[in-house]
Amino acid sequence: MIIVMAVNATDEDIKQVIAHVEEIGCQANLLRDSSRTIINVVGEERNLVREQFSLLPHVENVIPVLKPYKLASREFKQGDTKVEVKGAAFGGEKIIVIAGPCSVENEDQLLQTAQAVKTAGASLLRGGAFKPRTSPYTFQGLGKDGLKLLAKAREVTGLGIVTEVIDISELDTVLEYADLLQVGSRNMYNTKLLRELSKVKKPILLKRNFSATLNEFLMSAEYLLSGGNDQVILCERGIRSFVEYSRNTLDLNIIPAIKQVSHLPIIVDPSHGTGRSDLIIPMSRAAIAAGADGLMIEVHPNPSEAFSDGEQSLTPDAFRQLMKEVKAVAQAVGRSI
Amino acid sequence: MIIVMAVNATDEDIKQVIAHVEEIGCQANLLRDSSRTIINVVGEERNLVREQFSLLPHVENVIPVLKPYKLASREFKQGDTKVEVKGAAFGGEKIIVIAGPCSVENEDQLLQTAQAVKTAGASLLRGGAFKPRTSPYTFQGLGKDGLKLLAKAREVTGLGIVTEVIDISELDTVLEYADLLQVGSRNMYNTKLLRELSKVKKPILLKRNFSATLNEFLMSAEYLLSGGNDQVILCERGIRSFVEYSRNTLDLNIIPAIKQVSHLPIIVDPSHGTGRSDLIIPMSRAAIAAGADGLMIEVHPNPSEAFSDGEQSLTPDAFRQLMKEVKAVAQAVGRSI
Amino acid sequence: MIIVMAVNATDEDIKQVIAHVEEIGCQANLLRDSSRTIINVVGEERNLVREQFSLLPHVENVIPVLKPYKLASREFKQGDTKVEVKGAAFGGEKIIVIAGPCSVENEDQLLQTAQAVKTAGASLLRGGAFKPRTSPYTFQGLGKDGLKLLAKAREVTGLGIVTEVIDISELDTVLEYADLLQVGSRNMYNTKLLRELSKVKKPILLKRNFSATLNEFLMSAEYLLSGGNDQVILCERGIRSFVEYSRNTLDLNIIPAIKQVSHLPIIVDPSHGTGRSDLIIPMSRAAIAAGADGLMIEVHPNPSEAFSDGEQSLTPDAFRQLMKEVKAVAQAVGRSI
Amino acid sequence: MIIVMAVNATDEDIKQVIAHVEEIGCQANLLRDSSRTIINVVGEERNLVREQFSLLPHVENVIPVLKPYKLASREFKQGDTKVEVKGAAFGGEKIIVIAGPCSVENEDQLLQTAQAVKTAGASLLRGGAFKPRTSPYTFQGLGKDGLKLLAKAREVTGLGIVTEVIDISELDTVLEYADLLQVGSRNMYNTKLLRELSKVKKPILLKRNFSATLNEFLMSAEYLLSGGNDQVILCERGIRSFVEYSRNTLDLNIIPAIKQVSHLPIIVDPSHGTGRSDLIIPMSRAAIAAGADGLMIEVHPNPSEAFSDGEQSLTPDAFRQLMKEVKAVAQAVGRSI
Repeated sequence: MIIVMAVNATDEDIKQVIAHVEEIGCQANLLRDSSRTIINVVGEERNLVREQFSLLPHVENVIPVLKPYKLASREFKQGDTKVEVKGAAFGGEKIIVIAGPCSVENEDQLLQTAQAVKTAGASLLRGGAFKPRTSPYTFQGLGKDGLKLLAKAREVTGLGIVTEVIDISELDTVLEYADLLQVGSRNMYNTKLLRELSKVKKPILLKRNFSATLNEFLMSAEYLLSGGNDQVILCERGIRSFVEYSRNTLDLNIIPAIKQVSHLPIIVDPSHGTGRSDLIIPMSRAAIAAGADGLMIEVHPNPSEAFSDGEQSLTPDAFRQLMKEVKAVAQAVGRSI
Repeated sequence: MIIVMAVNATDEDIKQVIAHVEEIGCQANLLRDSSRTIINVVGEERNLVREQFSLLPHVENVIPVLKPYKLASREFKQGDTKVEVKGAAFGGEKIIVIAGPCSVENEDQLLQTAQAVKTAGASLLRGGAFKPRTSPYTFQGLGKDGLKLLAKAREVTGLGIVTEVIDISELDTVLEYADLLQVGSRNMYNTKLLRELSKVKKPILLKRNFSATLNEFLMSAEYLLSGGNDQVILCERGIRSFVEYSRNTLDLNIIPAIKQVSHLPIIVDPSHGTGRSDLIIPMSRAAIAAGADGLMIEVHPNPSEAFSDGEQSLTPDAFRQLMKEVKAVAQAVGRSI
Repeated sequence: MIIVMAVNATDEDIKQVIAHVEEIGCQANLLRDSSRTIINVVGEERNLVREQFSLLPHVENVIPVLKPYKLASREFKQGDTKVEVKGAAFGGEKIIVIAGPCSVENEDQLLQTAQAVKTAGASLLRGGAFKPRTSPYTFQGLGKDGLKLLAKAREVTGLGIVTEVIDISELDTVLEYADLLQVGSRNMYNTKLLRELSKVKKPILLKRNFSATLNEFLMSAEYLLSGGNDQVILCERGIRSFVEYSRNTLDLNIIPAIKQVSHLPIIVDPSHGTGRSDLIIPMSRAAIAAGADGLMIEVHPNPSEAFSDGEQSLTPDAFRQLMKEVKAVAQAVGRSI
Repeated sequence: MIIVMAVNATDEDIKQVIAHVEEIGCQANLLRDSSRTIINVVGEERNLVREQFSLLPHVENVIPVLKPYKLASREFKQGDTKVEVKGAAFGGEKIIVIAGPCSVENEDQLLQTAQAVKTAGASLLRGGAFKPRTSPYTFQGLGKDGLKLLAKAREVTGLGIVTEVIDISELDTVLEYADLLQVGSRNMYNTKLLRELSKVKKPILLKRNFSATLNEFLMSAEYLLSGGNDQVILCERGIRSFVEYSRNTLDLNIIPAIKQVSHLPIIVDPSHGTGRSDLIIPMSRAAIAAGADGLMIEVHPNPSEAFSDGEQSLTPDAFRQLMKEVKAVAQAVGRSI
């Protein structure tokens, strides 16, 4: 942490800052010249509270030097982390595709979709059993019955299962069935849930909140990592912006930006990220070209009858086309699918 | 719901839409002319799934007519709702001010602040016991000990207590102590928590998520109302935008916008809303001038030593000045404080 | 400017930075300790190009210390600037209200509006003659004929005239008629136009671009000031955000934020700022409570027949009500109207 | 345009709307049922002013049916438009790459860059002669001398020249030298300049404003098209959002979204779009995978000495690498480079 004193700071002001630095067990090194005084704080920066300095008299600026996250950073671990889920390794050379319906609706719908996405090349099956919905008047998911159907689909197809856990009270139930536990966009800041999941022995798919900065995204990952769970997969799914032609603005820039600073694998969900079925295939190609480690795609046998998110679901036919096109791009960037 | 068919829609397409409308128990009325066909759907719109129509062949547009919320709307209840907390009535002629530290830190800090804000005219005491923090490495609140200190402060000052509940697992504990339960910005979309709180016999302070639209904000209130809790107070606390000079962008426009469509009281939190102590007084005046029913203000005896949010905390002196200035504005808009 | 070297910076890297600093006529002072090397650059910072340092090997961070604007800053001029337009002084104790139609449509409409706003207490008359419209197919303004009508309205009512100049080619014509020249939101970044206006002997009303940061806003003012025109009035008129209930998000936070760092007067345009006639009165009250020096309000004798912006125009009756309510708030904050 | 009347609309209200519809030469067709009255307005919608209906008594909603742009739409022209610039055809099978320095600085810098980008496979040379800068104190471009250097570089390398025109007063000068005239992000709403450019016989590169919606972007293209210039190339260059890790948020979603509704070619500028040289290559790959027709890339022989935008400039070596990687992706999506 670097503290810049104002031009009119007195010796007394500077002494007060130094005293405060030393009080919390750090060391203060000074640079004084005609223009200003700069104090370099040496010590464990992540425990410091910025305001405890910025509010002292005549402190002009307090500049953090270290990143706020540690375990999630490339400084902590240089090589890429691989997270394995039922034989699918996220973060390796192979692009992993998760596909399935937004909500589990019934056995037919789920099995039909599961078979279709498996045939087309998906590695894991997604499906919502507990659904966090904006309206209290709309379908809230089948709950445990949905999980049972997912387990049946796994049995039939061999595909591992990805499903969301929306509350600690459901965690044990979800743990019984899921191979990969999803933390939804609305729960990315739910530190209570993250702490519980940090103790779990299963991999976590952490979706970016639609208004999260990169630092906030990695700080949520840090909650998981710091509690002992190092099987964390990140997922970009669109940010909220002013644009009117997509439900969210899929932000692919975060893919290479994350790869610069973190060792964690990151995948992309263009279904939620755009909210428009006609944008999913081109944005899936773009995600892989940008360096994503995988995709999560909503597929429904009959989108116009879906209980939720029909507008952003692909038919099985369209999903097959997606896999074909994504495969070509994957090869172009030196990866397989 | 109004369905606009594309210019090239066939009789078959139109029949399919009508069949679908009738299947879900609604009635379809048609307007056909040379330019296009429009279908007016008569029935309980809030149960309809938009996509089930928008994805049918040659449907060009599906336009909702009713608002998605019902119990929170002025159509449902014309007069203003009043919510009483320990003698303070939100939504009436009187402006209610909640004040106190971001986090409860220790007995001295809390009692000193409580006395000061009471003397200055605050009606309720705020203080965080369970804190949702971005970093796993920073202070996470005193938990139940913090609640006990709040209870003590209530005993001493007579001020009712406002504190956040961040997880269902802590609900019973918080209920024991709090007079007004706060749902924080990060939990506004936590429908599981909202459902639990809808069964509670205590009033709820629902903070707007920093990226919530007006509709989403009222839909979260609708979760509370539809479960049976009609003691709901809304709170604007800043949205996330591109601006660089305030931590959030306090959005006062939502005050008169909410008043147009909803009967619920709404207050403003300029501390989180701006993140800058030097903006709090002018924005508090502005909030009351815009029609807010109250304020929530962070006060700390020594902001530079606060465990959290020091940069946006007022000293007791500054809070007294705030109360004086806000009082003048309240009178100018025909209210008291 | 402070340059922070990376932990692994070599002596050679540090030498290269120092050489570069000296090459451009500045002085480099060093702080080296076990944790890192920090270089304080002493000299005229505003001429430096940040990248010329940030891209040198092992430079970790380059931190500007000075604000990018100078003449617009409080450091340069401590007291508030007053700008007088036809007897109305912006930036003083009195709140100045500009009112009138979005577009000048015809003599009747303009004179009727001018009389009404004068009677209600407005100090200046606004009216668009050259209109920058989103669509090439909609009304583009009466041009010079509109200016002539404005001049006539001035003659009849004595009100000074505020109108927009949208291109250098029209500047001479507008200068002939206007008392206060408006730079519209879309032109705030038009540095070519700003440079021309900096040489003009008339006051300028500079509207914030709907995506401008505070620094960018003041840098546009700096263009005017640095060219010699010190009669600059700022105007907040709403930013673009994700919200759905107002056309723009009127950002009153910038009022106290500007007052902290700049001596220039700032007014608020709640008509464009909200885009909703029913929000204009409460947000006008709030603007004055936040510390604004004036208001700009769209008034039309018959909004449903306006050629542009009808949805955000007040009737003369509503404008009278606005003036009454704003007056009470102005007094509450120690000002008059 | 469809007009939805409020539930409590009287016969008189409905008559008034019909009268207004007929007055402006359109036809009103009615659907009345127990729930509400809907009026279908048949006629030239683009000339209608929405407010003239929305403000009539008891009009609840006015819904435009047609897109606001016409000549830029796929309905007007189904096939893709190709725009040729010095032998490079935008909008065809081949990906076109424009490369060069942000600003023309001197002959050496420009010729060295021009040779390097030509060798690497660029089709056109970019270079700023007139620069719109945020600060009045920084380099504003070489002006006409810059254009002469560009002409020399064209002579030497055979590459066509792309440069920005920032004001009508410079248009004739720029026309003398440029092969493709760029309208910068800050000028996208400058309708005066667009009108002038619509009469020009040279192709236009229209950059999206950093806060423009898709409709606004195409409406600016419509200004060019409606004035007679049909050689329009669109360019996405990043939007302003809350994210902190890139200067702008490159919004690739607009590529497939534009392709759905418009026949115009669209390219991507990842240099401005991200503001970070380390994101340019992955986002260039992603842009082509998303369906872009070309790229515009900033290249400088020595970015740390660039007069502007050094942080987002590639070295010639990095640009060669970019071309190699983009080529592979282009082939994967069935295109060449």
